Amino acid sequence: MTGFLEARPRVGYYYTGRTSGAQIIEKIKKLTVKDFQAIPVVVDRSSSVYDAIVTMFLEDVGTLFVVDQNSILTGVLSRKDLLRASIGNKDLHTLPVDIIMTRMPNITICYKDDTIHSVAKSLIEKQIDAVPVVRESEHGLEVIGRFTKTNFTRAIVDIMNNDMF
Amino acid sequence: MTGFLEARPRVGYYYTGRTSGAQIIEKIKKLTVKDFQAIPVVVDRSSSVYDAIVTMFLEDVGTLFVVDQNSILTGVLSRKDLLRASIGNKDLHTLPVDIIMTRMPNITICYKDDTIHSVAKSLIEKQIDAVPVVRESEHGLEVIGRFTKTNFTRAIVDIMNNDMF
Repeated sequence: MTGFLEARPRVGYYYTGRTSGAQIIEKIKKLTVKDFQAIPVVVDRSSSVYDAIVTMFLEDVGTLFVVDQNSILTGVLSRKDLLRASIGNKDLHTLPVDIIMTRMPNITICYKDDTIHSVAKSLIEKQIDAVPVVRESEHGLEVIGRFTKTNFTRAIVDIMNNDMF
Repeated sequence: MTGFLEARPRVGYYYTGRTSGAQIIEKIKKLTVKDFQAIPVVVDRSSSVYDAIVTMFLEDVGTLFVVDQNSILTGVLSRKDLLRASIGNKDLHTLPVDIIMTRMPNITICYKDDTIHSVAKSLIEKQIDAVPVVRESEHGLEVIGRFTKTNFTRAIVDIMNNDMF
């Protein structure tokens, strides 16, 4: 009984306010993307592969999102995509990202109110490092964020450090 | 009181066996690398950068470990290292990995009995994707595994799916 119940003289037992194991898992499951997402790093669909690689290094990210002039998601570029292109004996300065990117409908997306648990599950199942956080607009899916394995790992490490529950 | 205590006729209250929030966090904190690590993918220190890139694609990993003839850790190659080399106007077939790898003592390592929580913290603090799991041998640090943000994310997702605590 230790921990959950304590005796008070003449009052009997009272609840200590601690939560159960099942409850804490439920709480972690309810955390949503909007509280843990990162800023998206985007390149224009007319950019060259070389410019995309430089952007990836300058911004120090593992995934770039390719957008059109309305910030609408058109593609995703991983380090793997860029590495593959860079050993392909093509001129990276003239090769457009449009040729090598993963494009809709093959892009896994998420919304700010999705749970980090469900998005982490997608990252594992799809074997990808990051997904764009999008919102629907009149032109299509607008990119408003980025959620990665790093964001998920940091969220869980913080929870374990702070014992926030 | 719901959940922790249930009434039994004539027996009064009994403990339901559920654990507290603090206890579940403690349990997750005690999980160790050996139960979640992946197989390490290594290249010889005399390999070319081109061969390392091909190995990375064939094995579908984000980090390679560079070893000597005794399987002793001598370096680490990330996708970023290989991408940087591949846009550097050098002949990747003749450039040895030895030139571009991160080398000791700048490599973050872990042991099989380290907690996944402490290693995940290192991954975040050092801004890296993976660490080699090593054991001490007479020649140096022998590479016996790999622990990545993917392994950590999968561990936590599995815990949340299975409510294993």
